[in-house]
Amino acid sequence: MKGVNQTRSSASQHVVIVGGGFGGLHLARSLSKTPVRVTLVDRRNFHLFQPLLYQVATGGLSPANIATPLRGILRGQKNVSVVLEEVTGFDVAGSRVLLNDGHIDFDTLVVAAGARHSYFGHDEWETLAPGLKTIEDATEIRRRILMAFEAAEVEENSDKRAAWLTFVIVGGGPTGVELAGSLAELAGHTLKREFRNINPADARIIIVDAVDRVLHVYPEDLSKVTAESLNSLGVTIRTGSIVTDIQPDSVFLKTASGTEKVATRTVLWAAGVQASPLAAALAEQTGGATDRAGRLPIQPDMSLPGHPDIFVLGDMASYAHHDGKPLPGVAPVAIQQGRYVARLITNRLCGRSTPSFRYQNPGMMATIGRSSAVAVLGRHHFRGFIAWLIWLFVHLLQLVQFQNRLLVLVQWAWGYLTWNRSARLITGSAQALSNPASAENFGHSPDLEINQK
Amino acid sequence: MKGVNQTRSSASQHVVIVGGGFGGLHLARSLSKTPVRVTLVDRRNFHLFQPLLYQVATGGLSPANIATPLRGILRGQKNVSVVLEEVTGFDVAGSRVLLNDGHIDFDTLVVAAGARHSYFGHDEWETLAPGLKTIEDATEIRRRILMAFEAAEVEENSDKRAAWLTFVIVGGGPTGVELAGSLAELAGHTLKREFRNINPADARIIIVDAVDRVLHVYPEDLSKVTAESLNSLGVTIRTGSIVTDIQPDSVFLKTASGTEKVATRTVLWAAGVQASPLAAALAEQTGGATDRAGRLPIQPDMSLPGHPDIFVLGDMASYAHHDGKPLPGVAPVAIQQGRYVARLITNRLCGRSTPSFRYQNPGMMATIGRSSAVAVLGRHHFRGFIAWLIWLFVHLLQLVQFQNRLLVLVQWAWGYLTWNRSARLITGSAQALSNPASAENFGHSPDLEINQK
Repeated sequence: MKGVNQTRSSASQHVVIVGGGFGGLHLARSLSKTPVRVTLVDRRNFHLFQPLLYQVATGGLSPANIATPLRGILRGQKNVSVVLEEVTGFDVAGSRVLLNDGHIDFDTLVVAAGARHSYFGHDEWETLAPGLKTIEDATEIRRRILMAFEAAEVEENSDKRAAWLTFVIVGGGPTGVELAGSLAELAGHTLKREFRNINPADARIIIVDAVDRVLHVYPEDLSKVTAESLNSLGVTIRTGSIVTDIQPDSVFLKTASGTEKVATRTVLWAAGVQASPLAAALAEQTGGATDRAGRLPIQPDMSLPGHPDIFVLGDMASYAHHDGKPLPGVAPVAIQQGRYVARLITNRLCGRSTPSFRYQNPGMMATIGRSSAVAVLGRHHFRGFIAWLIWLFVHLLQLVQFQNRLLVLVQWAWGYLTWNRSARLITGSAQALSNPASAENFGHSPDLEINQK
Repeated sequence: MKGVNQTRSSASQHVVIVGGGFGGLHLARSLSKTPVRVTLVDRRNFHLFQPLLYQVATGGLSPANIATPLRGILRGQKNVSVVLEEVTGFDVAGSRVLLNDGHIDFDTLVVAAGARHSYFGHDEWETLAPGLKTIEDATEIRRRILMAFEAAEVEENSDKRAAWLTFVIVGGGPTGVELAGSLAELAGHTLKREFRNINPADARIIIVDAVDRVLHVYPEDLSKVTAESLNSLGVTIRTGSIVTDIQPDSVFLKTASGTEKVATRTVLWAAGVQASPLAAALAEQTGGATDRAGRLPIQPDMSLPGHPDIFVLGDMASYAHHDGKPLPGVAPVAIQQGRYVARLITNRLCGRSTPSFRYQNPGMMATIGRSSAVAVLGRHHFRGFIAWLIWLFVHLLQLVQFQNRLLVLVQWAWGYLTWNRSARLITGSAQALSNPASAENFGHSPDLEINQK
């Protein structure tokens, strides 16, 4: 491509980064002073701040508040070209990244294409239980949640109405907990007095998880606090329960005491993730193999075994840390790995070696609702208002653009004062909207009868 | 419906309003103290502030900033029920509004379902030249504009690149002018330095109109000022030109000097509008007829001839004012008509008559760009910075929610200081995104060749 060729004269090594998420973006930015040409390829034109995606799904923030154009972020960095294209595979022997149209040659390749949700072999559940990874996922979940209240408002049969007002969230990790808390506040406060036939606060919100506690990677005391906070918001927690089937109007759970059917029209998936299919494509080309979650095992320097110029970062990488535990699929891991690879590339140019990657765990945190969060920072456990303030502060500062920090702050402050949420729009295709109470996207037809005498 | 029945005991007359735009919403709010039951039916769950839609289409604002949930606006008004449903027609003899599912009985009916763009008999142009009426229109236009720059960036053929960088806006009214000005600022300033192969400022933006000047309903001096401002932004104005055909890669114009082909990949439609098809449905039921723009001629009290309990408002109504001129399809007309019908309904309850509707023209205004606008207020003509300040002030105050005023103000202030626009996201269906530089939504296949040596 021309843009890349133009800068060739001033720097010979060409670093191609696939993916503009946390890993890829921080890598590109960290190479700003390194004499290499960088091409960042992404199929989307923005960097997405996924940790706040659940707030888009529940109407608190607009998509643009958490998505920043990659070209804008990297405009001033002369050695970077951004290419908006879908990567379809690799030709490792030919040192090429394959695109939908054409290809890009690389000297160094860094693949950081992230992960999608995994339905553990039940891909047919995807349309019935959407996950939360993209802007489109978030606006679709927002549509389903808001439409469920609308459908309940006009449903005369009490059992069917109850099913519309029942929300099942599969997965009790941070995403499931944050989604449940935010949904409970939406139902219990934001929508208050907006309906005439239903009380939105009657909504049942159920978290289902196979393990014995929510946030099971967190210390036990914080899991307990989280469960208590969720309960006080009216959320039901069903731990030790496995989802065995999802139907348009129900979810089937297997528990210690048998099988149970929960009537619901809205199921949200926050359970498992699996790496981008590009991991498997790369494995095939490099003679490697992906793990159960579709991730690529990597060397202590983030490279693939036998391929010192090919690196894999973030959610696509399986990295056994020095303490033996695998690193979690969170933003700080990807960011640190991106910066590490930048340092390694820079060092190599000068013939210097780079010590193995070591993850500096900055801690972890999840928010349950207003003034309620849990956080682990080093050896300290935080909960309640103080954890919530830490969460707010950390997330605000991590947003890429100052303008978005300001917009998010205004909306959070406003929401705190009024419980209102400004972004409660039902949007989508004409098909999904032309019959708004339709179950089209839910899998089958509705039984609504609107007759007024 | 239950909700409506519940309030029946306290008030017998049931006013059904079709459409939650400017007319319908102001009518509903103005009936807050009138002892009637009101049902507001809309297929969307929000009131849309259409005058700022072009700012969503050009990445300056997020959809939620100009769309406010109807239930939220009307939550405190106990005599109003909101129904999210598509109205499919009317049964006037049976006093029923027909829905996709079921129907609603009315005593008084007010139809204010607005207008869509009209392609003057060339409906096949719709996919090639989208208009700007809904949130989805705006995000689709935003996608096309941003994708055109992306496609130009990777296009090696200079003619094809020029076609990607050529934007034709059909229609030189306020929407066309505002869209052109905003697009020119996007290309000339916001996108500056974001691309490596193209200079976005090379974009050609062309306004095409059949009449002899832009903003032809405005006084001539303001048309002239507008044309000068547009020219200084680099916009080409082709007045006296009729679009005779639109193809995926070109537009054909008929001018005084012959036929001309303009190579372009992005055509935006800001030319004509036609009333909602519900106008024709109502005409059929009431023995009336719609005019050329699909509108219903109405009585001086907004009712349909022979149907004193059926009213039509706003863009669906054709109302010859006392000065003989038809009223334009703008927000102030719909708002005043909504308030008028509320007054009339209230008066009738007390047996009072209501004088004919008289439009109080508050003036008109259009913005061309930063510090540049034109406005007519009474006998005064304003231009430049002062007109722009008036425009800002009026539009900010008209936004329904204080929170949205604040969010819009922050984004305008930020944009003014930095030229940045926060909402430059390319979003849409997986199909539209999987091959981002594809012309799928443009009508045919692209000729992109991305090959890098």
